[in-house]
Amino acid sequence: MTPIVFLTDYGLDDPFVGVCHAVIAAIAPEARVIDLTHGIPAQDIRHGALVLLDCAAYLPPSIVLAVVDPGVGGPRRAVAVEAGPHGNPWLLVGPDNGLLVPAAERLGGARRAWSLENPAYRLEGVSATFHGRDVFAPAAAHLAAGVDPGMLGPAIEPVDLAPLTLPAPRVAAGRVEGQVLSIDRFGNVQLNVVPAEAAAAGLGDAPVVVEVGGRQYRAARARTFSEVPSGQIGLLEDSFGRMALACRGDSAARRLDVAAGSPVALVGWPGS
Amino acid sequence: MTPIVFLTDYGLDDPFVGVCHAVIAAIAPEARVIDLTHGIPAQDIRHGALVLLDCAAYLPPSIVLAVVDPGVGGPRRAVAVEAGPHGNPWLLVGPDNGLLVPAAERLGGARRAWSLENPAYRLEGVSATFHGRDVFAPAAAHLAAGVDPGMLGPAIEPVDLAPLTLPAPRVAAGRVEGQVLSIDRFGNVQLNVVPAEAAAAGLGDAPVVVEVGGRQYRAARARTFSEVPSGQIGLLEDSFGRMALACRGDSAARRLDVAAGSPVALVGWPGS
Amino acid sequence: MTPIVFLTDYGLDDPFVGVCHAVIAAIAPEARVIDLTHGIPAQDIRHGALVLLDCAAYLPPSIVLAVVDPGVGGPRRAVAVEAGPHGNPWLLVGPDNGLLVPAAERLGGARRAWSLENPAYRLEGVSATFHGRDVFAPAAAHLAAGVDPGMLGPAIEPVDLAPLTLPAPRVAAGRVEGQVLSIDRFGNVQLNVVPAEAAAAGLGDAPVVVEVGGRQYRAARARTFSEVPSGQIGLLEDSFGRMALACRGDSAARRLDVAAGSPVALVGWPGS
Repeated sequence: MTPIVFLTDYGLDDPFVGVCHAVIAAIAPEARVIDLTHGIPAQDIRHGALVLLDCAAYLPPSIVLAVVDPGVGGPRRAVAVEAGPHGNPWLLVGPDNGLLVPAAERLGGARRAWSLENPAYRLEGVSATFHGRDVFAPAAAHLAAGVDPGMLGPAIEPVDLAPLTLPAPRVAAGRVEGQVLSIDRFGNVQLNVVPAEAAAAGLGDAPVVVEVGGRQYRAARARTFSEVPSGQIGLLEDSFGRMALACRGDSAARRLDVAAGSPVALVGWPGS
Repeated sequence: MTPIVFLTDYGLDDPFVGVCHAVIAAIAPEARVIDLTHGIPAQDIRHGALVLLDCAAYLPPSIVLAVVDPGVGGPRRAVAVEAGPHGNPWLLVGPDNGLLVPAAERLGGARRAWSLENPAYRLEGVSATFHGRDVFAPAAAHLAAGVDPGMLGPAIEPVDLAPLTLPAPRVAAGRVEGQVLSIDRFGNVQLNVVPAEAAAAGLGDAPVVVEVGGRQYRAARARTFSEVPSGQIGLLEDSFGRMALACRGDSAARRLDVAAGSPVALVGWPGS
Repeated sequence: MTPIVFLTDYGLDDPFVGVCHAVIAAIAPEARVIDLTHGIPAQDIRHGALVLLDCAAYLPPSIVLAVVDPGVGGPRRAVAVEAGPHGNPWLLVGPDNGLLVPAAERLGGARRAWSLENPAYRLEGVSATFHGRDVFAPAAAHLAAGVDPGMLGPAIEPVDLAPLTLPAPRVAAGRVEGQVLSIDRFGNVQLNVVPAEAAAAGLGDAPVVVEVGGRQYRAARARTFSEVPSGQIGLLEDSFGRMALACRGDSAARRLDVAAGSPVALVGWPGS
């Protein structure tokens, strides 16, 4: 049975994630659910979309159930999106607010989409505030149980899905101006910059100046965390292919005093 | 195989939940475990009971393994409680401290109960401090594997189960005095008030005054989070059928400066 | 299929754990994964090793996938270690930094080991910073799917595995000098002292003086948390067989102002 990959901003302290698991088990007792993460910052659609995008290449063909949904109960549509190869596609289920779009692109592009309007595949008495439980989890469970996505509601045009714009860095000679995408548990600072963009700016493999909040730091280039000199800032390619700032034995985020969204510039080292 | 639904106050930072999963897998390798939540505040029996109560309607027939157990190792009994329809019941396993009682009521009432005294269905060398691992998880696993609950120990009378009293609001004309039941990750404030009680007080659909800690706030009525005017407090029915206070784009709990247990009154808006 | 028991210091807010689950599901769709905990303090090899050690006796024969890996991408080896009975062994997979060694000892000793060098059983394009996803999870999944561990890479001598020294207490007449191993969610303070060591110091069952940070506290002996007098400190044997300090209705860690690693002495009560 096709597994369900589950991502939300629900956290794990409340029973929201667990009750969705229960709803899935009631509809599709054999379905396997893989929790990708439920630690997306509350209502942060862009962060959720980036995590889905970064992880997409590692997901087996699956039903991706993703809910970061500040507009729950309002006019935004609930959708299922088919992406990837014919015969063995991914089906992404969630709100039509941009959350699913970058991952669908990464998986080969949205080929078909449906609006989840058929009450037969929702719980009875859909609440106004918890569509994860009442609309999205049931849809994912029915899909896992083999229901054709066309049964869930009318087809819609993939081009009509709400878009999501991810922030692009500004690349100039010797200078890349980007921002912090996310900070992980270890305090590593992921930037919206890929190595090709740093190379295009001519930053090479030499140390760089990191400009943040009017302050400047030297960052050596490194391949691994342990190559960063102890207590110093290093610039490396993280495991999802983005440039990241790390500090061995400390949190780079705390050291640099940055948060998600903070502007960060990488500048060629004087003379290098 | 009947799934096990698992709820505790163990949190996920320690290995307590994981080692219970391991114990279950050793006894019943095929059993599926659904983690409802392990984020119940430490030793808060009432909170755990309320979460079970609110989620009960969404659980498939299952073995509900619930452990919030400040009296572990003391005289409180370990019990299994049967509730719901003959032939396809729920079996609730946990300490006899009131935790299971409201959910059993919601599921149709406790029909039979047993005291978990048979050492054959506990781990060898039961510890004095971790019955989740040594008593409750093994019992749930054996039940999932098909053991008759009567094998786990002597039958007891359901009426002898330790009761749990949930706080009821005081309803008067134009005024409901209740308290905060819980606060979720988004800062929404769940009250021990249901819409019928607000209606009985004549609060209708008009805005209300929220009295808390000697302060007063205006709360518009809303159906969804996005109907709450940005930055203001709204009063809505949450997804578990209780009245809740929300604040769009902010934590209502922080805005109102309340915690679980805080008294809150809802008062008719002057002139409405 | 042999289950995979999974422990890391990744936390659950980032998608690191979830993407490892996805990688496992892509390689071994039927494999069951038991999350032991992902709350090991970041890069704390010793803490991770202790949790594995304490939980080892409760694990069914399984593939233990454990990743606390500050040296990722550096010269430390990636290994699989076989321990326990012939025919139904445990296979421990992780970095060769001591993390696996105490648990392997507890499970009967490391009998065979292999260096995970065969690229056929890694992901393509192994990153320099995330071997949990790219090396360890794939190895565990292939083992769960029935691959012989000898296929994963060359055999190495178990005696050549990097050792880990756990801190031993100093036992004298009437005095045991140890340290805090860990603090759990309830604020209980686990010491690197076992009851036999307290007995060897002649501490018997009488109250003790707890010396910590130049301060002294009286601790009554207790068997259960509820035997500790309310608001006082108690000394008991915890569920993993270690001595622990607890405080009923409060966090003993906060009361004693200790953290992991803090020196703690247990001293016979004057006159007892």
